[in-house]
Amino acid sequence: MDRYKVYVLGATGLVGQRYVQLLASHPWFEIVGLAASEKSAGKKLSETGWVLEEPPLPSVAEMRIEKIDVEKVPRVDFVFSALPSEVAAKVEPELAARGFTVLSNSSNMRMDPDVPLVIPEVNPEDLSLVEKQRATRGWRGAVVKKPNCTTTILNLPLKPILDEWGIERIHVVTMQALSGAGYSGVPSVAIMDNLIPFIKGEEEKVVAETRKILKQDFEIYATTTRVPVLDGHTEVVYVDTKKDFDTATVTEVLGKFKGLPQELKLPTAPPRPIEIRAQIDRPQPRLDRWAGRGMAVVVGRVRKLAPRKLAFVVLGHNTVRGAAGNSILTAELIVATRR
Amino acid sequence: MDRYKVYVLGATGLVGQRYVQLLASHPWFEIVGLAASEKSAGKKLSETGWVLEEPPLPSVAEMRIEKIDVEKVPRVDFVFSALPSEVAAKVEPELAARGFTVLSNSSNMRMDPDVPLVIPEVNPEDLSLVEKQRATRGWRGAVVKKPNCTTTILNLPLKPILDEWGIERIHVVTMQALSGAGYSGVPSVAIMDNLIPFIKGEEEKVVAETRKILKQDFEIYATTTRVPVLDGHTEVVYVDTKKDFDTATVTEVLGKFKGLPQELKLPTAPPRPIEIRAQIDRPQPRLDRWAGRGMAVVVGRVRKLAPRKLAFVVLGHNTVRGAAGNSILTAELIVATRR
Amino acid sequence: MDRYKVYVLGATGLVGQRYVQLLASHPWFEIVGLAASEKSAGKKLSETGWVLEEPPLPSVAEMRIEKIDVEKVPRVDFVFSALPSEVAAKVEPELAARGFTVLSNSSNMRMDPDVPLVIPEVNPEDLSLVEKQRATRGWRGAVVKKPNCTTTILNLPLKPILDEWGIERIHVVTMQALSGAGYSGVPSVAIMDNLIPFIKGEEEKVVAETRKILKQDFEIYATTTRVPVLDGHTEVVYVDTKKDFDTATVTEVLGKFKGLPQELKLPTAPPRPIEIRAQIDRPQPRLDRWAGRGMAVVVGRVRKLAPRKLAFVVLGHNTVRGAAGNSILTAELIVATRR
Amino acid sequence: MDRYKVYVLGATGLVGQRYVQLLASHPWFEIVGLAASEKSAGKKLSETGWVLEEPPLPSVAEMRIEKIDVEKVPRVDFVFSALPSEVAAKVEPELAARGFTVLSNSSNMRMDPDVPLVIPEVNPEDLSLVEKQRATRGWRGAVVKKPNCTTTILNLPLKPILDEWGIERIHVVTMQALSGAGYSGVPSVAIMDNLIPFIKGEEEKVVAETRKILKQDFEIYATTTRVPVLDGHTEVVYVDTKKDFDTATVTEVLGKFKGLPQELKLPTAPPRPIEIRAQIDRPQPRLDRWAGRGMAVVVGRVRKLAPRKLAFVVLGHNTVRGAAGNSILTAELIVATRR
Repeated sequence: MDRYKVYVLGATGLVGQRYVQLLASHPWFEIVGLAASEKSAGKKLSETGWVLEEPPLPSVAEMRIEKIDVEKVPRVDFVFSALPSEVAAKVEPELAARGFTVLSNSSNMRMDPDVPLVIPEVNPEDLSLVEKQRATRGWRGAVVKKPNCTTTILNLPLKPILDEWGIERIHVVTMQALSGAGYSGVPSVAIMDNLIPFIKGEEEKVVAETRKILKQDFEIYATTTRVPVLDGHTEVVYVDTKKDFDTATVTEVLGKFKGLPQELKLPTAPPRPIEIRAQIDRPQPRLDRWAGRGMAVVVGRVRKLAPRKLAFVVLGHNTVRGAAGNSILTAELIVATRR
Repeated sequence: MDRYKVYVLGATGLVGQRYVQLLASHPWFEIVGLAASEKSAGKKLSETGWVLEEPPLPSVAEMRIEKIDVEKVPRVDFVFSALPSEVAAKVEPELAARGFTVLSNSSNMRMDPDVPLVIPEVNPEDLSLVEKQRATRGWRGAVVKKPNCTTTILNLPLKPILDEWGIERIHVVTMQALSGAGYSGVPSVAIMDNLIPFIKGEEEKVVAETRKILKQDFEIYATTTRVPVLDGHTEVVYVDTKKDFDTATVTEVLGKFKGLPQELKLPTAPPRPIEIRAQIDRPQPRLDRWAGRGMAVVVGRVRKLAPRKLAFVVLGHNTVRGAAGNSILTAELIVATRR
Repeated sequence: MDRYKVYVLGATGLVGQRYVQLLASHPWFEIVGLAASEKSAGKKLSETGWVLEEPPLPSVAEMRIEKIDVEKVPRVDFVFSALPSEVAAKVEPELAARGFTVLSNSSNMRMDPDVPLVIPEVNPEDLSLVEKQRATRGWRGAVVKKPNCTTTILNLPLKPILDEWGIERIHVVTMQALSGAGYSGVPSVAIMDNLIPFIKGEEEKVVAETRKILKQDFEIYATTTRVPVLDGHTEVVYVDTKKDFDTATVTEVLGKFKGLPQELKLPTAPPRPIEIRAQIDRPQPRLDRWAGRGMAVVVGRVRKLAPRKLAFVVLGHNTVRGAAGNSILTAELIVATRR
Repeated sequence: MDRYKVYVLGATGLVGQRYVQLLASHPWFEIVGLAASEKSAGKKLSETGWVLEEPPLPSVAEMRIEKIDVEKVPRVDFVFSALPSEVAAKVEPELAARGFTVLSNSSNMRMDPDVPLVIPEVNPEDLSLVEKQRATRGWRGAVVKKPNCTTTILNLPLKPILDEWGIERIHVVTMQALSGAGYSGVPSVAIMDNLIPFIKGEEEKVVAETRKILKQDFEIYATTTRVPVLDGHTEVVYVDTKKDFDTATVTEVLGKFKGLPQELKLPTAPPRPIEIRAQIDRPQPRLDRWAGRGMAVVVGRVRKLAPRKLAFVVLGHNTVRGAAGNSILTAELIVATRR
């Protein structure tokens, strides 16, 4: 089978590197170009500051970074964008107008009613918003967004809970990894032997995006914090359900949850999108972030606090499931449902 | 004025070292002896593994550690105990029976109805339980407990909120420091680039002790986690109040809160037991744990989520206000109210 | 081909877990039993405190840990021992006497003249000491030691330097990972925002073992320190050579170095035992410790300070190349050279 | 006594904050103004990103930051400069030309033969270079430099060793704190669970500056690394001496070393500029960096490796003794020797 051609924008940042690494060995996709800001343009990928735990795969290490230029993006099936929001806000619509399907990480446009904000296991049906988007905006291509990383990790377990018991109210407190702020986002002297109980714009995103994805208007309150962990966001979640539950059933329902990507056996789909840890001191970022090759979220400490009052802890890899991996899975879903 | 004589049990642990350091320069108290387990007995304090950021004060550095032996504790006004619970459960009642006033850190007996569980600014009136305790148990002395460190830090801001607006329900998620587990409590390979979303027995203590201290039967749910921070517990708190509030008034009421220790100008009492930080990214453990010389808690991010729904973050030094400092302040209160 | 049967002693410690993980997917070896101290006996491997970044492979996760008992070790081709020295000193000779070939991590017996202390690329010829050992001690089996982790990482680059230019004097300063001290070896409150410039017994081992392995009596001085890094020992090395050199040739000779394991294409042998990093700020533990799947050491910052004065930095994975991996490679070498 | 008026340039960086904090309670000096880059100009000091472990003292917290402008610096006795080198290279000479005495942290001009590079205990006599500087450059004021932080910490123990035994050769390997790179110098994702064996320009500075300060042409080789420690540089030092020594005498000579600042009892002078730790696992950054209120260096692990071969570990607070404190002590020395 001929592979689909893809292009990566913002290839040198932390999320961009994840895109490149995940795509470099992808069975369906083939990277035909990488672009980043002027600073990196002209360099080989291996010459930019690579920071993942494994070096860039040989198939991409020698690729040269191009300067971002919408006029020079070659004919490809998908453009994956890890651009900062302010750049993305300009570049992505232009690409969509020119006919490209852009799978984007950045927060601009996420709340626009004609823009799909997709977690493939949770709301695959929202991909159909693309038609409305094209009609409204007169684009030949499209912009498809992935949610904020914290939102994605939260909504995977919320979806089966919502379907089975209903949700009235959610309190979530997050402990988020450093990589979520980008390579230079958190200086070491700011966070060593410390934590920061605030992440700019994050709480609003979690609240608004969750309501859009789950199509609910429940009460939801978030406090988001930064902790000295490299990768993996941990979230402590309290849920007031509509119907009563027992803990064993919640655990079972979460552990068995599957979505369209699992049905379609998409290459990046984890066998179980929600893994359950029975040990009382799990999930832990360093031990659990690579569950399902970074594409599963891991749930533990499922507790019944009182009738209709549920608590649990969920953890996910913020730059894989929370970012690059989720968009790649979405692209796979587009391919698989288009056929 | 002659100083009151005090004795420290468990002087070589993390909390024990805080006791010794705080008492070594205390205006009212004079350390006349230190005891610890057999392992340290006979050594000078300076020869045991001192781990605080400043070396032991000269007045105590050369004191020799004695073996714990209830028969050899000299006549003193107060015994401060930082013993592990299983040892404390045996030693403390024997000392109380022999006429000693024991101010104890350990969790045994905390929930007994005749045992004061005291935060001096919050429930000083509970010191009067000592009379019931003596009557019931036939002791000439007494055992007075300080609450769990997390409970103490939480209850300082809860008290003025309860008094002013009433409380229906509390959700708290904590991010607790390593020193709370004792010197060998958390191996470095377990916590670096990681967090652990469970602390044994902690959640039950926070719930039960808060109800005892505030004499309320409200809903309260806690999730306690361990993070890679040396000192300073951070707690994200959601409160459903009985009466509605506005954020500015909550901030003002918390910032102005004072208790009996402030009225009596006790030496260890911080001028303001609750300090407010206006910066949106505070409190932070490394920057705020020494507020009020470790005796104040620091509150930030006071938010109104919805009518009667309050959120804030509180931080306190777990081995000072959360442990040794709180007990020393309690001893000062006993002295001051006895006169 | 039938696989060789192996048994792991001390399977629940940090090095033991590496043994199990590396052997669980080994093409030549098959784990037939795991033993550890009484505390873990009877539990499944997955129920003991697993701390590696990936969970135990399914083929071993459900194996039950046995209590260490020399009489109950089944007939196997190799016993891999990750026991603490004091236990090893008793158990390993008994096993050797009973006919087992024991590949051991612990430091006892390492300096005995009839005991091979082997880095397969550096001194494979020392395996022949086994015959002397059997003759001297009347054993049917044998004890073969791997060197101290720091020694192993140091000696890989020293070997080609010695062969090509000769060595007069070595100064080495190490920055060693936490996992080198075992799971509970370094409390988190001892090492966070800190380093410890001393590791008990380490400097003596590096000096004595290097002289034994390289069969040289040169001057060698070591200072070993502990730093807050999970895995990967970094060593800054100064070498006074006998003959003069130029930097480019040193880099080339190191990068091309191969040993018997590479010639024999042993399954655990890295293609290049010494990888060179050209970037000036490498090697770094987090980015380079998995070079050659943890079996290569990584050299950088090769500098000529003055005529015959060489400096470089070398890094290796202390529990893979520095421990379990080195012993497994040695076992492969025994198998391959026996045939 | 009237206090000397001082002005701080670059007051908002990590070193600038140390200057402000140390000067805010200084008995001889009075801060009359603070300047920094445009970004901070107009803000109160307390509104800029303060990152020290204690908040700014009340006497300075409300001071407004001015924009750096050589024409607007008021008449003061000393200007303390913590400017980045490229800014300093322009601003400092202009100030000196206008008659100001500038005590500067930055590396420009350090190696100029008419510029004093002063550690007050080591080479106070070099202050007299100011006269040559004024003559050569036609300045009414002067520029006095403090050495690189690593150099300062190294040269304190080298001085008495040089005086007593002579020095032929030095090997030094450093493990340097994050604060040495400035607030944004080391991203957290670059250094957590990691170390970086290279610091740009550092090794050359250590070598050249040490030769200038000690007026020697011995062999000296340095490898400088960055480790995840907030404050406090640790240096492992090997010295080939000219005359033989015994360890006890070295320890005694170092511990008794005093310089002109101690004789003159300058306010910032530590009673003992070199403190000795007898414990084998010291010095450690977190436990020892505040020795002498951050102005002493701490030496441990003094060892005789062979005849005339000495090894030790030295640690100092890089932003106090290594930066702001050293310059303030130099200013005190100027005042005291001028009278």
